[in-house]
Amino acid sequence: MSAHRDLRISGERLWHTLTETAQFGAIPGTARGMCRLTLAEADVAVRHWFIAACKALGMTIAIDQLGTIRARREGSDPALAPIGIGSHLDTQPTGGRFDGILGVLAGLEVVRTLNEAGIVTRHPIEVIDWTNEEGARFAPAMVASGVFAGEFTLDYALAQKDRDGVTLAEALDHAGFAGPVEPGALPLAAHFELHIEQGPVLEAERLEIGVVEGVQGIRWYDVSVKGQTCHAGTTPMALRRDALHAAARLAIAVDAIGRSDPGQSLSTIGLFQAFPGSRNTAPGEVRMTVDLRHPEVAGLDRMEAALAAQIAALEGETGCTATLSPIWSSPPVRFDPNVIAAIAGATQRLGYTHRAMLSGAGHDSVYTARVAPTGMIFVPCENGISHNVAENITPDEATRGANVLLQAVLDYDASAG
Amino acid sequence: MSAHRDLRISGERLWHTLTETAQFGAIPGTARGMCRLTLAEADVAVRHWFIAACKALGMTIAIDQLGTIRARREGSDPALAPIGIGSHLDTQPTGGRFDGILGVLAGLEVVRTLNEAGIVTRHPIEVIDWTNEEGARFAPAMVASGVFAGEFTLDYALAQKDRDGVTLAEALDHAGFAGPVEPGALPLAAHFELHIEQGPVLEAERLEIGVVEGVQGIRWYDVSVKGQTCHAGTTPMALRRDALHAAARLAIAVDAIGRSDPGQSLSTIGLFQAFPGSRNTAPGEVRMTVDLRHPEVAGLDRMEAALAAQIAALEGETGCTATLSPIWSSPPVRFDPNVIAAIAGATQRLGYTHRAMLSGAGHDSVYTARVAPTGMIFVPCENGISHNVAENITPDEATRGANVLLQAVLDYDASAG
Repeated sequence: MSAHRDLRISGERLWHTLTETAQFGAIPGTARGMCRLTLAEADVAVRHWFIAACKALGMTIAIDQLGTIRARREGSDPALAPIGIGSHLDTQPTGGRFDGILGVLAGLEVVRTLNEAGIVTRHPIEVIDWTNEEGARFAPAMVASGVFAGEFTLDYALAQKDRDGVTLAEALDHAGFAGPVEPGALPLAAHFELHIEQGPVLEAERLEIGVVEGVQGIRWYDVSVKGQTCHAGTTPMALRRDALHAAARLAIAVDAIGRSDPGQSLSTIGLFQAFPGSRNTAPGEVRMTVDLRHPEVAGLDRMEAALAAQIAALEGETGCTATLSPIWSSPPVRFDPNVIAAIAGATQRLGYTHRAMLSGAGHDSVYTARVAPTGMIFVPCENGISHNVAENITPDEATRGANVLLQAVLDYDASAG
Repeated sequence: MSAHRDLRISGERLWHTLTETAQFGAIPGTARGMCRLTLAEADVAVRHWFIAACKALGMTIAIDQLGTIRARREGSDPALAPIGIGSHLDTQPTGGRFDGILGVLAGLEVVRTLNEAGIVTRHPIEVIDWTNEEGARFAPAMVASGVFAGEFTLDYALAQKDRDGVTLAEALDHAGFAGPVEPGALPLAAHFELHIEQGPVLEAERLEIGVVEGVQGIRWYDVSVKGQTCHAGTTPMALRRDALHAAARLAIAVDAIGRSDPGQSLSTIGLFQAFPGSRNTAPGEVRMTVDLRHPEVAGLDRMEAALAAQIAALEGETGCTATLSPIWSSPPVRFDPNVIAAIAGATQRLGYTHRAMLSGAGHDSVYTARVAPTGMIFVPCENGISHNVAENITPDEATRGANVLLQAVLDYDASAG
């Protein structure tokens, strides 16, 4: 055990791997931009690279019916299920080279490090590339880990279509990644995921590691505000039912809902457009989205009630009506105390500055947490930016994250089961 | 003179003409919708119909270099310039059968009435179809009356292109309406325009006629609000620079500017869109338009200063910056006291309920007012709606407007010059 605690990954090798594999889907003309849509050419190429790299390390490959790649390094105790180190190799259409990718390639680096040191863990170690985490080609996001955890049925997932009408089943067949393994058939003893924060907190607080204790709940809504289109020059202000003005009031209220529980509540209007969209016509309709997040169900309920109350009050205040349509929700997730403890202990021992935090974004770990002890490690990213060609981290940040991953997995392996 | 005062147009004949000519550009599947874009097939068809109808009444036709049709009925005094009765036969792409069209066809009805009664006016009467009033095919709107009045040069107007890159000059050539007459070469003794109100005031006050004393000034702006795109789930509210939130505050302020001088000031945000437009991303930019209107230059100046002050304050309040780009303005217009008096006098004599009012929209009369005594007559329209296939008026409303036009022109003819 004490020998394990001195073990470190090779930051240089990890960075080289991150850089080398960024060729698969690199966006020409950008410094680091990536387009690696699920099962499109670049994703298929990196999958083949990943399988070859794992095989070169002596690992065995299982591919499930959703194309998820599970690369296995055997342990010493045949009775134990594997510890998974998973994330995803797909990206947004204008994404970066770290979101998801870091978690998979750091898993590979962990195995390389264990091989070099000749360490045999008790549990098998599986490095996992979950299919279609981003949801950029097929909705919903995190579909393969969702089926693994029983959130979606296999048939539902396989029937999802991309914008060209190609189903996930057809894309898997075409790419040669429709594997034989039932997604839920291979249980996990635990799931560890290293990920960039995708937010500015660690950078703002100048901290090196985020020990992620859970994931916020998320609720998505569509809102339509309806008034009466009218001519900009001929309709007195007092006779207008201006949907843009009503929607602006609602936007101010939504922002206030996000600020109502500082450090916990978040609200975002991502889409907002006025119709018909003519310079000299007051809009008759505004369509907007609302994204509410909170770590507690009670908090989400309170925010939703406040939003519904604002919408109900809008007609009396503005003469415009609004409808609120819930379209998706994801309940809050609490990660496993033992996995969190392993990550926190490893971080402290490594001497990295850190804080406990929640993930604001969804990850495959949201779903694995339903069926296996799960935890996540965050590293800072530049300006908190992701889902953007400007996404960036430093080699030191990648190295620290992978060292926490290595040490936490080894600690968990030694103590669990 | 007293005989003239008993003269009335034929409401039935006018309505028949309005209905009959609505075939040129009728939108299939709508009750009254019209698409008669400048010099497109339907506009060319109605132009040929109009010329034939005028010739049948013994009128002579002059077509200027911008295709404006001036149909002339001679007067008794060869020293006098003609009194124009003008508006436009073109429509918005999804417009109605009264906006502009009523003013031209009521002019035709006035001539029919004079012919039947055997009345010879002192001034010649010209019924005028101004080319491209709507601005829907070629920008700017009211381009032919603008060149007539010296606001634009002929070359500028002819070089304007539609969305397919066809110039106005090419469209005129193609349609056979590139006439020989220089637009400003035929002066007018006066210009009378009957038009639907395009607003709800007359209907709301249950009044039959609007005596239009002028046209509001208009200023158009583009506004860009810039913040920082961020992930909806990972960026604390306190660290955001949310362009949508800043733009919503600005929208509230713009609405307040419109309400600052009740009965005078108007403000409208017609276009408003958030970018990049992703459900789980707080917008980094909002692009919006602002339309400010006021009957006085000083009022416009004050509104513009208030808008500029709000924009300047936005950065301190929200961390987002905004830029204000003026893109077009039209100064306030005061119509001619003698023309207004003729219209008001005729309205009173006819016993129609009425009020003095300003036009909120632009019209060809805005430009004719610069070079000829000008006035306008408004009739109510259903729900104040225009630029819409739902645009509607009643036969009685059309009749009353045309009777005021007839009587006002006769009075002006008798007293002026």
